[in-house]
Amino acid sequence: MRQPHDDTPDKIPRRDRTPSPEKRGDPQSRYHQITEHLRPKSKSAITVGHPGPPADHRGTSCALLVGYLALAWSDELLHTAGLTGPQLAAVLTVMDTMRTEVIYGQYLDVTATGSPTTDTERALAIIRYKTAKYTIARPLHIGATLAGAPPQLLKELSAYAMPLGEAFQLRDDLLGVFGDPKITGKSRLEDLREGKHTLLVALALQKAAPRHAAILRRQVGNPQLTDAEAAQIRDILAITGARTQVEHMISERREQVLRLLTSPHTIRPRAQDALRTLAETVTRRTS
Amino acid sequence: MRQPHDDTPDKIPRRDRTPSPEKRGDPQSRYHQITEHLRPKSKSAITVGHPGPPADHRGTSCALLVGYLALAWSDELLHTAGLTGPQLAAVLTVMDTMRTEVIYGQYLDVTATGSPTTDTERALAIIRYKTAKYTIARPLHIGATLAGAPPQLLKELSAYAMPLGEAFQLRDDLLGVFGDPKITGKSRLEDLREGKHTLLVALALQKAAPRHAAILRRQVGNPQLTDAEAAQIRDILAITGARTQVEHMISERREQVLRLLTSPHTIRPRAQDALRTLAETVTRRTS
Repeated sequence: MRQPHDDTPDKIPRRDRTPSPEKRGDPQSRYHQITEHLRPKSKSAITVGHPGPPADHRGTSCALLVGYLALAWSDELLHTAGLTGPQLAAVLTVMDTMRTEVIYGQYLDVTATGSPTTDTERALAIIRYKTAKYTIARPLHIGATLAGAPPQLLKELSAYAMPLGEAFQLRDDLLGVFGDPKITGKSRLEDLREGKHTLLVALALQKAAPRHAAILRRQVGNPQLTDAEAAQIRDILAITGARTQVEHMISERREQVLRLLTSPHTIRPRAQDALRTLAETVTRRTS
Repeated sequence: MRQPHDDTPDKIPRRDRTPSPEKRGDPQSRYHQITEHLRPKSKSAITVGHPGPPADHRGTSCALLVGYLALAWSDELLHTAGLTGPQLAAVLTVMDTMRTEVIYGQYLDVTATGSPTTDTERALAIIRYKTAKYTIARPLHIGATLAGAPPQLLKELSAYAMPLGEAFQLRDDLLGVFGDPKITGKSRLEDLREGKHTLLVALALQKAAPRHAAILRRQVGNPQLTDAEAAQIRDILAITGARTQVEHMISERREQVLRLLTSPHTIRPRAQDALRTLAETVTRRTS
């Protein structure tokens, strides 16, 4: 009888045998290769004496791997987009900065979530790093960089993008608490139950009468928050003026951005129109 | 009294005020920026009504972010290493392939861990994608690609790296179960408790007498495995011949690799010496 380690190579499908690693699979064959291992094995191979690790542990591990795969493939898309050497180098600089910024923003968010405070600085820092840069400023910079934009244009795009990105997130915070779930498609309880550290809640905590502040501290971040309790929080956010203040901050930022587009600058007319439409859309949206 | 949203900007440290995003912080200032937010805030800002999310949830979230940051910064190091355009484009192709491969290997590993089977194909596929390519083949390709290696040399490096990478992991599997913890610095229980799907265990399951197979199925992947039970598993791995078979597979691969280095090829003499030393080291190591 042959030794198992001699048998083994015959059982291995061709594509798994030490392939020459410089050969790239196309997406189709790569998908096939991955799904092949999901098929049930022979009965003897799947019989085990204990259930193995909990399903949620495996699920979490696989979800993380899918996230890493999406990241790796998004890089690959960029690297194979047919850019020139100088274009690729320039855009990678923006991408690298953007990644560090958004990770920093996520960190600020994660460590503040669950225990909202009066700290408006922190709320604004989260908005800037997690949303304004990642959602508006850097995407504009990426496009502009690929088009060979001079530094002056990048500066102007930042001046446009940062207040608009802040307004975008402030609108998001309002919709997360006051929005119509039928229109937003999002529960109005989620942000409150999670205890998102928003400017809305920070301002309310600063202004609230002691008994209202006590309710906010007890209920924002309460994972069992009921609809009635959420309604009470909404009342407090309105009574303290926090809701109105946030609406005011959104308007201020929209005006600032629209003023900027009518002042002297180097943004071309067609791009101006698009940026004006974007500014209206993200600050006035209901979903 | 001024409105809070008017006050807010004054409280924000200079570096947090909508900075022009095209300005990159150097690592030092970036570190400062990050640690600043770790400092305790004023008492009023940290008083909360409930404890917030469990510490382990926050810890896990932050650990993931640190992992993503390390990945982003490793990319940035590569992008700013002073490579030429063609060098950068060529090395990114290898990096992208390597990432997909190692994620695939991790996936195969994660989904097999906890319930070892007789499936030697799976055990070898894990070794190839997770270890052989990531630890030996791709690093050699990255260096060779930066040095402008022709396709023939990359092929020869693969022919060297894949069997050696397999041998490296097979040695690792043996050390994980039979190694001296004083020398390896690693517990001999960890792999067995986790239920790592290794070729060693798969071969033993194929060869074991029914009562031994039953013990393996029950105990490999048992998170409460005791030292005495681990000793019993080691005995079974030896009795079935699995340990000897794996040692034999390691020797075979070392011989294959060393033969390759004495056959006609395009690898330069100095590199040959380094590769020969590497082959001996990774296959004969005790730690």
